[in-house]
Amino acid sequence: MFVQPVPTLCRHGDGVLILDQTALPYRQAWVELQDVAGAAHAIRSMQVRGAPLIGATAAFGVALALKEAADDDTLEAALRLLGATRPTAVNLHWALARMAARLRPLPPAQRREAAWAEAEAICADDAATCQAIGEHGLALLRQASGRPGRTLTVMTHCNAGWLATLGAGTALAPVYAAQAAGLPVHVLVSETRPRNQGLLTAWELREAGVPHTLIADNAAGLLLARGEVDLVITGADRIAANGDTANKVGTYLKALAARAADVPFYIAAPYSTLDFACADGAAIPIEHRGAGEVSSLRGLDENGQERTLQLAPADTAALNPAFDLTPAALITAIITERGAIAPQELASRYTDRAAPEAA
Amino acid sequence: MFVQPVPTLCRHGDGVLILDQTALPYRQAWVELQDVAGAAHAIRSMQVRGAPLIGATAAFGVALALKEAADDDTLEAALRLLGATRPTAVNLHWALARMAARLRPLPPAQRREAAWAEAEAICADDAATCQAIGEHGLALLRQASGRPGRTLTVMTHCNAGWLATLGAGTALAPVYAAQAAGLPVHVLVSETRPRNQGLLTAWELREAGVPHTLIADNAAGLLLARGEVDLVITGADRIAANGDTANKVGTYLKALAARAADVPFYIAAPYSTLDFACADGAAIPIEHRGAGEVSSLRGLDENGQERTLQLAPADTAALNPAFDLTPAALITAIITERGAIAPQELASRYTDRAAPEAA
Repeated sequence: MFVQPVPTLCRHGDGVLILDQTALPYRQAWVELQDVAGAAHAIRSMQVRGAPLIGATAAFGVALALKEAADDDTLEAALRLLGATRPTAVNLHWALARMAARLRPLPPAQRREAAWAEAEAICADDAATCQAIGEHGLALLRQASGRPGRTLTVMTHCNAGWLATLGAGTALAPVYAAQAAGLPVHVLVSETRPRNQGLLTAWELREAGVPHTLIADNAAGLLLARGEVDLVITGADRIAANGDTANKVGTYLKALAARAADVPFYIAAPYSTLDFACADGAAIPIEHRGAGEVSSLRGLDENGQERTLQLAPADTAALNPAFDLTPAALITAIITERGAIAPQELASRYTDRAAPEAA
Repeated sequence: MFVQPVPTLCRHGDGVLILDQTALPYRQAWVELQDVAGAAHAIRSMQVRGAPLIGATAAFGVALALKEAADDDTLEAALRLLGATRPTAVNLHWALARMAARLRPLPPAQRREAAWAEAEAICADDAATCQAIGEHGLALLRQASGRPGRTLTVMTHCNAGWLATLGAGTALAPVYAAQAAGLPVHVLVSETRPRNQGLLTAWELREAGVPHTLIADNAAGLLLARGEVDLVITGADRIAANGDTANKVGTYLKALAARAADVPFYIAAPYSTLDFACADGAAIPIEHRGAGEVSSLRGLDENGQERTLQLAPADTAALNPAFDLTPAALITAIITERGAIAPQELASRYTDRAAPEAA
């Protein structure tokens, strides 16, 4: 079982410690969440990010909300507050629906311990999910690798590794599984402007000892066209019933370029990312974030001090969609803990799961 | 005739003044070139950039080389030095070939004045070329605009405006022509990592009073897919005989997304960008630049001081191709001073021009 080089989230007494991802890759800082407002803030401000980790944080947010009072009003208010933090990732709603289903039937006196236990169970399940995604993905990597000993080049986008989950990650789980199995892998890490989550991916790969190369998002097209990439894997924030996938903005461009170069393009995500309530991508809400993410950037100055620089005048208009939609037709397969299947088969194969309840 | 809000290059006594584009958009600084080494350095370090401006700077570099001695050895050494500065832009070679054709037949004593005159003529021709590109492009913009008064949304990449030329620009010449003609235009400016030439575009559009919005390169796919863009225009660094086009890395991804959304994708460039010696894109050399451009970034700190920040550890491996190749099949038309034609028609329509001579 994959062990996270640095834990992303853990219970700490009657609080929750999270690794502050807005400080990475420059500093390892921890934030202690003591109440539901802190949990909501951590999600909104992207101190935690990555669909599975957002879900787990929201689940713990419910447990934190019930510390003072565990009546119906408190529970429902917490579900509403946490559910409104970020619009695109469906795992958030899935985790909250799971908490609601477990807690609503209980008398208030039993809810507190049940909430902590359910949140812990969501974390444990996520780690197991990551492990299973890794194993299913590894089979595809072995297939692509061809002859033994050849180094496989995997392109990814954003951060969907151990940092985004409670386990080995989603998109990167197959990479860590390959590393554990002795299959040589090299990861092409796209910067992922505007928030540069690619730098988080480079950091986590370095912590885990996986060889990697950083590229500007713009370079993906040429490298794919020139045959320098064996396959592309990204995570997902929400997958519609027809296989259309919302993921970090820029994913769609890589999928287009992969298709043009006849390179397999995989989505790896927990089964809970599937949202059968969305018929297709057009039904998935796309979060727009502030212009400041485009017109400024954080890094280290010559003294190793963290700074934010203004790239464009503060009054420059900017459009900043945080996600885009990759049509099912561009996706070779979707890898979940239940296996890898063509996106077109999702609805017919997975008939046992309804849409997540409104939380 | 379009007048540059700030001149990009001008003769100054027996030297040449260039606007230092590595200081923009934060500072307007001028560099005086006094010799051929300075001109070569200005091109290599991207103090001047943009294919037409690179060509003009190289032409003046020849004039600067002949200041001390105008014999054959000096002339040939200057042509070689300047020709080796950047591999992808063909205008560089075209401008040097034009200088060589003018100067080689002359006795050394007549070369000095002829070199200055020819370089000035190259600049004047470029301004006229930009103007003609603007007029041909304006006809396409009018077509796309539909009903009078509707604001046309034009997406561009990198900087191919007045800053990149001696006139109104290439890709942006039609935008300035539209502005002059009273046709409302809004420009979507993609950041263009890793060197962020999109910030130069935002700066030059602001100087010229054209409304614009900055986007991360990654956002282009979603915006095109959602029908929020009427057309895409970029410049080019070299166009092969079959219409395949080398331009700033990231262009190809926009062309793929434009095609998928059925949005016209135009290349606007001087006729001198056509390289009939390259049968197709595979024959165009692609410059790779240093990893530092990917792992660091320049901006203004909270005191308005210019700084360079380290984004990733300095020993992070990075791949940094500066250009990519857009296949002719994705290009709606190529706009030069001779008109707008389908890329597939280049070779059959333009039979009067041979490959540029080796400089």
